[in-house]
Amino acid sequence: MSADNLDALVVTHLPNIFYLSSFSGSSAILVVTPSDATLITDPRYTVQAKQELAETKAKVQIARGPLLMAAGEQLKAIRARHVGFEAARITVVQKGTLDGAAGKRTRWVAWDGRIEKARAVKDTEEIQTIREAGAIACAAWADILPLVKVGALESDLAAEIEYNMRRKGASGPAFDLIVASGERGALPHARASRKAIKKNELVVFDLGAILRGYSSDLTRTVFVGRAPREVRRCYKAVLEAQEAARLALKPGVHSEEVDAAARRVLQGAGLGDKFIHSTGHGLGLEVHEMPRIARGDKSVLQPGMVVTLEPGVYFEGQGGIRTEDDALVTERGAEYLTQANRELIELG
Amino acid sequence: MSADNLDALVVTHLPNIFYLSSFSGSSAILVVTPSDATLITDPRYTVQAKQELAETKAKVQIARGPLLMAAGEQLKAIRARHVGFEAARITVVQKGTLDGAAGKRTRWVAWDGRIEKARAVKDTEEIQTIREAGAIACAAWADILPLVKVGALESDLAAEIEYNMRRKGASGPAFDLIVASGERGALPHARASRKAIKKNELVVFDLGAILRGYSSDLTRTVFVGRAPREVRRCYKAVLEAQEAARLALKPGVHSEEVDAAARRVLQGAGLGDKFIHSTGHGLGLEVHEMPRIARGDKSVLQPGMVVTLEPGVYFEGQGGIRTEDDALVTERGAEYLTQANRELIELG
Repeated sequence: MSADNLDALVVTHLPNIFYLSSFSGSSAILVVTPSDATLITDPRYTVQAKQELAETKAKVQIARGPLLMAAGEQLKAIRARHVGFEAARITVVQKGTLDGAAGKRTRWVAWDGRIEKARAVKDTEEIQTIREAGAIACAAWADILPLVKVGALESDLAAEIEYNMRRKGASGPAFDLIVASGERGALPHARASRKAIKKNELVVFDLGAILRGYSSDLTRTVFVGRAPREVRRCYKAVLEAQEAARLALKPGVHSEEVDAAARRVLQGAGLGDKFIHSTGHGLGLEVHEMPRIARGDKSVLQPGMVVTLEPGVYFEGQGGIRTEDDALVTERGAEYLTQANRELIELG
Repeated sequence: MSADNLDALVVTHLPNIFYLSSFSGSSAILVVTPSDATLITDPRYTVQAKQELAETKAKVQIARGPLLMAAGEQLKAIRARHVGFEAARITVVQKGTLDGAAGKRTRWVAWDGRIEKARAVKDTEEIQTIREAGAIACAAWADILPLVKVGALESDLAAEIEYNMRRKGASGPAFDLIVASGERGALPHARASRKAIKKNELVVFDLGAILRGYSSDLTRTVFVGRAPREVRRCYKAVLEAQEAARLALKPGVHSEEVDAAARRVLQGAGLGDKFIHSTGHGLGLEVHEMPRIARGDKSVLQPGMVVTLEPGVYFEGQGGIRTEDDALVTERGAEYLTQANRELIELG
């Protein structure tokens, strides 16, 4: 903040607020000045804010009206001139409200990505939490495998996984879980439907658990029946693409090189045009955060970053295969934080 | 659009996109002109978009780069001059991207709330879906009541409810479920923790199911043990406040009058300062949508609107009591869409 000569910073993105203040509620603005910080929230969170901020020096202000009005009025009261705000995390209307309340003397500075950049590098405790969140996802998936059989509904399997993860201590699923069988597997974001699993179908499971605010993200694909040779070949190529990405993942490397490593393997197997998304993304307080592991991304990888590696291939009208693990960038390379069996499993 | 003399409208809010196009993916922009509509999405949704838009006349465009760039370029290509956008549903950065791609000749018109206003009035099919989503929540809550006893963890009860709702056909919970026992009940948005339920505690359950995109929202409070006289008195006051709100709910009335009806009852019972939130909110494709049932809200209620009625009282350090049902505004009054037992239940 001092480098940018800011008198104040208005933080509106909830995961950033949680990162800076430990407040986990769904309605808050954090106003940071060089000397202090004030969390503005609404009356529903009076008690919770007091509890969660007890170990910080931040003050709590309960606003009766719109939080952005209260934030703007505070900026006015402290005569803040140069004010940073999260331009990528505030709507045009919200910015107008803030503007109006702060007054005309305020000079706004778009101050995006700094907190996200700090969040991208995890400390030991954060890594341990993601590791535990990953272990919950892995164990839940292994637990429900015996239920994956002809006639089982995708949505029932998703329900079993969620239930299992919660019983293992997860505060919830990290996203709408995907259980996509047969041709639905060709939709990379298919969630779980009322479709029943049939004989000789691939089933893609994409699941994650939230633990103490941090997410895990795991994908496994199984075959119900005896997998044909072509399925085995594609599965192996996806696995090799993932391993190539992991070997490319190390400090100092650009994100795009990791993506390219996976892409090269699939291209070599004649499957380049079937890999229709990026190789991965950062993982932490959000399921998608910095850095992206994608074409054209020049982010420089650093020790402590946690990213997913999730190559996949999709055949319209037939099915899909994806394998995804969470990987920690270490001093010398990368290690997986998720340890579920990666080999092709044939069921039923 | 024609009344506002718009050449095009850029819709960025996903529930609005779903409402207009049936597309349920997590990444899309809808560009509407007086003669046609184009859904812009990314390659992950190629198949899904085609399937979901099959019965509409909208075109599908798969963008390789940022969707907002593609939308802006399309506006430029069709020489749209007056363009409506959702200022409350687009970030400052996103608007900048759109602006840059569309070119300098574009005149932007903030066009907020129109689709939300249309969404507030439900048709027969939407009402039926919310009714079914409500029945799932009610049945799940009744099913897990036998598990509510001394020693049960809040988070395990939340897991049971979610699992139960999914097995009944819900595609998921409508929000992070709340199971808040004892003094945690004083936090209106407490979610479910690893806390175990103790003897002589109130337990607040706030749950909802998503069915075919539509949400339900239900709250019940139970007592574990034999409820003291003061708890019974407060519970009765909350129930009476809710019923007063329901009787006030009818076409032509302002939202704030419904809120005031609930508030008056609690004030009469000496509990006015314990009711620290609004009486309710619209319910549909989002858990919170138009109209709000709150102080100062001048929305005029209309037949077909569905709102929650959820007065509550909160005692810091002790506990909370809230009752919430979903209500449909009919031609002459209002009827509940959720039918779970509203009387105080004493367990264990």
